Amino acid sequence: MSAAPVAHADPRTRCDRTTAWGRLQAHYARVGRCFDLGAAFDAEGAARVRHFSQQAPHVYADLSKNLIDVRAEALLLQLARECGVQQQRDAMFAGAAINHTEGRAVMHWLLRKPPQTKAGQGLYAIDLVADALREVHATLDAMLALAEQVRGDSAITDIVNIGIGGSDLGPSMAVKALDDLRPQGKTLHFISNVDGMELGSLLRGLRPESTLFLIASKTFTTAETMTNAQAARDWFIAQGGTDVARHFWALTTNRPAAAEFGIETTLGFWDWVGGRYSLWSSIGLPIAIAIGADHFRQLLAGAHAMDEHFRTAPLEQNLPVRLALLDVWYRNFHGFGSRCVAPYSHGLRRLPAYLQQLEMESNGKGVDAAGEPLPYATAPVVWGEPGTNGQHAFFQMLHQGPDVIPVEFIALRRPGRDLPGQHTRLVANALAQAKALMRGRASPDNPHRHFGGNRPSTFLVLDALTPEALGALVALYEHRVFVCGAIWGINSFDQWGVELGKVLAQGLEPRLASGDASGLDASTASLLQRLL
Amino acid sequence: MSAAPVAHADPRTRCDRTTAWGRLQAHYARVGRCFDLGAAFDAEGAARVRHFSQQAPHVYADLSKNLIDVRAEALLLQLARECGVQQQRDAMFAGAAINHTEGRAVMHWLLRKPPQTKAGQGLYAIDLVADALREVHATLDAMLALAEQVRGDSAITDIVNIGIGGSDLGPSMAVKALDDLRPQGKTLHFISNVDGMELGSLLRGLRPESTLFLIASKTFTTAETMTNAQAARDWFIAQGGTDVARHFWALTTNRPAAAEFGIETTLGFWDWVGGRYSLWSSIGLPIAIAIGADHFRQLLAGAHAMDEHFRTAPLEQNLPVRLALLDVWYRNFHGFGSRCVAPYSHGLRRLPAYLQQLEMESNGKGVDAAGEPLPYATAPVVWGEPGTNGQHAFFQMLHQGPDVIPVEFIALRRPGRDLPGQHTRLVANALAQAKALMRGRASPDNPHRHFGGNRPSTFLVLDALTPEALGALVALYEHRVFVCGAIWGINSFDQWGVELGKVLAQGLEPRLASGDASGLDASTASLLQRLL
Repeated sequence: MSAAPVAHADPRTRCDRTTAWGRLQAHYARVGRCFDLGAAFDAEGAARVRHFSQQAPHVYADLSKNLIDVRAEALLLQLARECGVQQQRDAMFAGAAINHTEGRAVMHWLLRKPPQTKAGQGLYAIDLVADALREVHATLDAMLALAEQVRGDSAITDIVNIGIGGSDLGPSMAVKALDDLRPQGKTLHFISNVDGMELGSLLRGLRPESTLFLIASKTFTTAETMTNAQAARDWFIAQGGTDVARHFWALTTNRPAAAEFGIETTLGFWDWVGGRYSLWSSIGLPIAIAIGADHFRQLLAGAHAMDEHFRTAPLEQNLPVRLALLDVWYRNFHGFGSRCVAPYSHGLRRLPAYLQQLEMESNGKGVDAAGEPLPYATAPVVWGEPGTNGQHAFFQMLHQGPDVIPVEFIALRRPGRDLPGQHTRLVANALAQAKALMRGRASPDNPHRHFGGNRPSTFLVLDALTPEALGALVALYEHRVFVCGAIWGINSFDQWGVELGKVLAQGLEPRLASGDASGLDASTASLLQRLL
Repeated sequence: MSAAPVAHADPRTRCDRTTAWGRLQAHYARVGRCFDLGAAFDAEGAARVRHFSQQAPHVYADLSKNLIDVRAEALLLQLARECGVQQQRDAMFAGAAINHTEGRAVMHWLLRKPPQTKAGQGLYAIDLVADALREVHATLDAMLALAEQVRGDSAITDIVNIGIGGSDLGPSMAVKALDDLRPQGKTLHFISNVDGMELGSLLRGLRPESTLFLIASKTFTTAETMTNAQAARDWFIAQGGTDVARHFWALTTNRPAAAEFGIETTLGFWDWVGGRYSLWSSIGLPIAIAIGADHFRQLLAGAHAMDEHFRTAPLEQNLPVRLALLDVWYRNFHGFGSRCVAPYSHGLRRLPAYLQQLEMESNGKGVDAAGEPLPYATAPVVWGEPGTNGQHAFFQMLHQGPDVIPVEFIALRRPGRDLPGQHTRLVANALAQAKALMRGRASPDNPHRHFGGNRPSTFLVLDALTPEALGALVALYEHRVFVCGAIWGINSFDQWGVELGKVLAQGLEPRLASGDASGLDASTASLLQRLL
């Protein structure tokens, strides 16, 4: 479906033009700046935890160890209402063209919606959405059938996904997270960079007859992906591979280009699926091959449960909203520049990299929807490594560095493939770090061993790293990003900032062969000569 | 050698108590704040590039696309002199106990020093240093002999390094970077986290008779490492493995504990090697197995060349010093909170994670050497992913986000294992991004497509990803961290901030079995119940 989406009136008020904004500034100056977590716990105790924690589908969240009080929360909720978060949310779920700079709807949530339910609950475009839902399920069924075909084909042992950005980070993150469900005898590989050391090293260990390449590119023109796809096909033919159509499939909207490449098996998707929101679409084929059709449907179901929570829960009990409001509080009032994501789970080790794209590409914008420059900060730097590894790397700075960096802990109640005693030790460490950040420890005799405490953290708990829980967790982050963008007044769904570099690279590439540095700035010219 | 190191008089003046500090503040207010890169290039052109770029051993650096002018640089050099950077550097190279909170010398540079050269050029402890150098080479020779033994032993196909923090990040990063040199038939694995999903998943594919485990822990008590080592030994015995002494080696200073574990082959090191500076020591054994003795000596030689550069070059032509001064300029005057490291090299994909520990654990401190709280910022958040991947993830924000985030590009002149056209395309992208960040592009008709430019970056070039170049690059970062620490007046070599969490984890672990939440804060108590 690429019928033109219905336009909509923009209901938003920019955050800095609301009444709540000024009140929040005043509250920050009076109370927020010197808020003391230890004192808050002493005064409020279990009531604080009850108030600032909640269960959402598959994800429990304890926000109580954050630098926030009930008054700040109330003002932040007022801010959300004044900014029209609910109306903006409803517009997304109605299929309106909220990605207005590209004239597109934003419907990755539709990819998670069960068939034959009422498609939209908002104001716009219900028929279009219902049509799209039918297409979604036809494509999903076809995709899962292909996945099962690969899983049942014992001749195929290695599946190589060639894609970059959204065609890489989501599938690669999810396949790692759900590795316990991967059958023996199938290995998934992810090739993204245009660096012979990546694909070349992998190909050393592969045989053409047992390898399936998935070429994932919405337009089938992404420079890195097409370069790697061509190199893979060259290798395949040089190694005596004879049936390109059997060993190369495409995940793309550009069927003709895939056909010209020699590909017959093509899965499509739609212009209302942004790259960084696409793991639920045909781009998820490597996930489906790794975990199977039933588990992939569970992944979708978990995300859909979070969609319904986001769509229907009142703002004050709406977890994506609450997390987003904390982000705004920290970014625009406390002035914190980054957030550390610490999953205490080897399976979630690439979640921080995935979130870097999701949050920073979505909300790393400098103008509002009307194109006016923003006078306030937007997305923070999102970064992290799994715990306990991070404890042995950068947690020193989180505890004792001058800057406050909010930490987001993610822990699992039940382990996956456990070894004796390991899971308990892992979880104890997550709890201990959160506690240490909050409480600190005075060391009157030795200031080098002093921990000031009062360092905020959020603690998320999944029952286990199941497909449902992973789906819900990722959808939680997607909607949190949506709410932040809605409050900051930006379009979270375009990415014009990636265009200029692409254009300049095309101009520089032939110069690296010719050595022609004419017309370049002195630095680029000098580096070009040095890199010849 | 663990003879007590010689104490030394501290020659430092804290940065904010120097004359240069105030002058830098004034210069920032007058010129720095509104410095315009485009205008600077228009005015200075090639002369700017000549002035702000230099060759150091194996690393070429172009600093010209940074928000700095000649006056700021002169004041920063004055700052370095007033802070006693040279004297502090000389004290390190003389083996003085500059890690004063732990009463230890800091001599990772000695691990790179060729034998039979004059050991120290400074004021202190020359005999101790000479003795230590003899021990270093005896241990190095023994380590490399063991590495060659493993390389020649065709029965051993899989080498599993079990270590965390400095016993993991350095070797793991270097083995990935130098993968082109790894012989077929030997696979290196790195296990760090206390999560059964990591070790358990690996063990599924291993056989005891062809596996060698390296247990890397300075004290042989690191909780995660010992937990994994015991699980590995249990698996080994359960799978019918019979010769623990042949299949488990230790890299540790605690020989008795290793012997009790059943280990006979133990390589030691010294208390003057910090964990995050230890890849040059016995902790580097997995690197030596991967690349061989000669290449490991080249890695050391590259680092030694950078040591000599740092030790002898005048400050204004001293690359670690120049990079550190930019760090201080950006952190303490421009107020930038993070730095993005973008290696355009798949081989260097874990360099950012390695640097997170090196920089943030070393300089993420909040008190000066005397224990006084610091009124200024120290280490930035260091983060990144390899290019071009980052371009498809977070570069949107680097180009158009409201915050300025300095970027550090690393490019290779010659590729490793290349595929046709890939390296040129990769390098063109690095150049293009740096140029786009600097120049921007006006878009009068569409503010969403506007690039403001004036975003700073540093561009480092290695001829190729050889052992020498990697050694030099890592040593460059080590010394840069040293200079930052010297200016900020902190001890870059302790890590007291990791202690509290460890202690608390020990207390919480039994509670996760018993459910006893008594005496805990309400949040920790509630999470404990939920995680039972």
